[in-house]
Amino acid sequence: MTYCCALRLKEGLVFISDTRTNAGVDHISVFRKLYTFGIAGDRFITIQTSGNLATTQSVIGHLKNQLDTHQEQNLYSVNTMFEVAELVGKTLKAIISDVTADTQDQSNYYCSLLVGGQIKNQEMQLYNIYPQGNFICATSDTPYFQIGESKYGKPILDRALRYDMPLDEALRCSLISFDSTLRSNVSVGMPLDALIYHKDRLNVPIGKRIYQEDPYFENISKAWSDTLKKGLQDLPVPTADYFE
Amino acid sequence: MTYCCALRLKEGLVFISDTRTNAGVDHISVFRKLYTFGIAGDRFITIQTSGNLATTQSVIGHLKNQLDTHQEQNLYSVNTMFEVAELVGKTLKAIISDVTADTQDQSNYYCSLLVGGQIKNQEMQLYNIYPQGNFICATSDTPYFQIGESKYGKPILDRALRYDMPLDEALRCSLISFDSTLRSNVSVGMPLDALIYHKDRLNVPIGKRIYQEDPYFENISKAWSDTLKKGLQDLPVPTADYFE
Repeated sequence: MTYCCALRLKEGLVFISDTRTNAGVDHISVFRKLYTFGIAGDRFITIQTSGNLATTQSVIGHLKNQLDTHQEQNLYSVNTMFEVAELVGKTLKAIISDVTADTQDQSNYYCSLLVGGQIKNQEMQLYNIYPQGNFICATSDTPYFQIGESKYGKPILDRALRYDMPLDEALRCSLISFDSTLRSNVSVGMPLDALIYHKDRLNVPIGKRIYQEDPYFENISKAWSDTLKKGLQDLPVPTADYFE
Repeated sequence: MTYCCALRLKEGLVFISDTRTNAGVDHISVFRKLYTFGIAGDRFITIQTSGNLATTQSVIGHLKNQLDTHQEQNLYSVNTMFEVAELVGKTLKAIISDVTADTQDQSNYYCSLLVGGQIKNQEMQLYNIYPQGNFICATSDTPYFQIGESKYGKPILDRALRYDMPLDEALRCSLISFDSTLRSNVSVGMPLDALIYHKDRLNVPIGKRIYQEDPYFENISKAWSDTLKKGLQDLPVPTADYFE
């Protein structure tokens, strides 16, 4: 399984991915699911992947190969983030079609992608790309997307995330979303890859790999449990009719 | 969809169910999914249902009919909660077998049940009964079960619920679990049915129906959102390496 989450907020973009892949509970590996591309001063692109590992690696491999072999259409030649999403979607769809030419059920080979970034003099964008190659775009009404095991980490985003939230608070919110998912589903696992992009900087951030013993992550994980326990105790006592 | 949650704690039992059923998004109804049986001073039994509505209603119908027609095996004639679970499981399995005799795919007719209660001079028990008629039993290590849309409401239970928690705090915890689920999945809907049983009372509680405008539920729902927002703001600020 996988959990990836991406936010497109007023001040910038936040991306977090886990790194656990599994083929059965006795075949667990660590693979990166967050990839960055970019040319400082011109564009910054992040791709997060969920689904069949061969498909996701093939997508990233093809996108890199398009750059290495200077193909006409590549991540650095297209003009807009919309065209980036189209290129990634087209690449994904072609890979799935190719590998499933002789099979009835394509869905075993599916993957989903989140693609975010910014090109010079344009708005930041965030897309959720489906196995069919089509996609949807984040807005200020719905400023985040999740792929993979999304449910455990959704309540905190639904309650607390706002488009105009400062990036550091949004980062905390999404780290808590991950902490909740990690606790409830063992197929989502550390380390995590986190990356913050500040609007209009047009740099390619390194991002941070968060290991199990990361002091800050441990700190907020414990603090959050304490917040919830204390919060529950502080809620008003149920009225008597609840006990009839 | 459905969300039902049941807790077997040191001090008693807590049951909450939603009431929304749907056959497509344009066919939504309200049906009770929490049923009580019992003889004051002798036994108290609750059954919660999730899955195919015809199957769940048939199970409850058969169990009532066994009582009405004084069949040898019924909820009031069996000796232990284990035998209650066996009877319910056997009844469920027979109904599914009967209705699917001419079909390949039984799963459309499946339902899952939570069965909890206490019989005089015996321990309280809580069972999760599968469509195959077999079941598992809650313990002090795992004091709760969920059926239906369980994921959105699981993180708060995983973090905060403890076997030795007072019943009123456990009730708040499970109401918050419901509030989170209601916010994230429109196929789970108000009103809710909640029921608290205090260990060894051997009464048959009425329980409470919680409507949309229930002042206490509205109150804790808002207080909980405030707790989470403030909790996020109070978490330590991410270290600088998160922004590299």
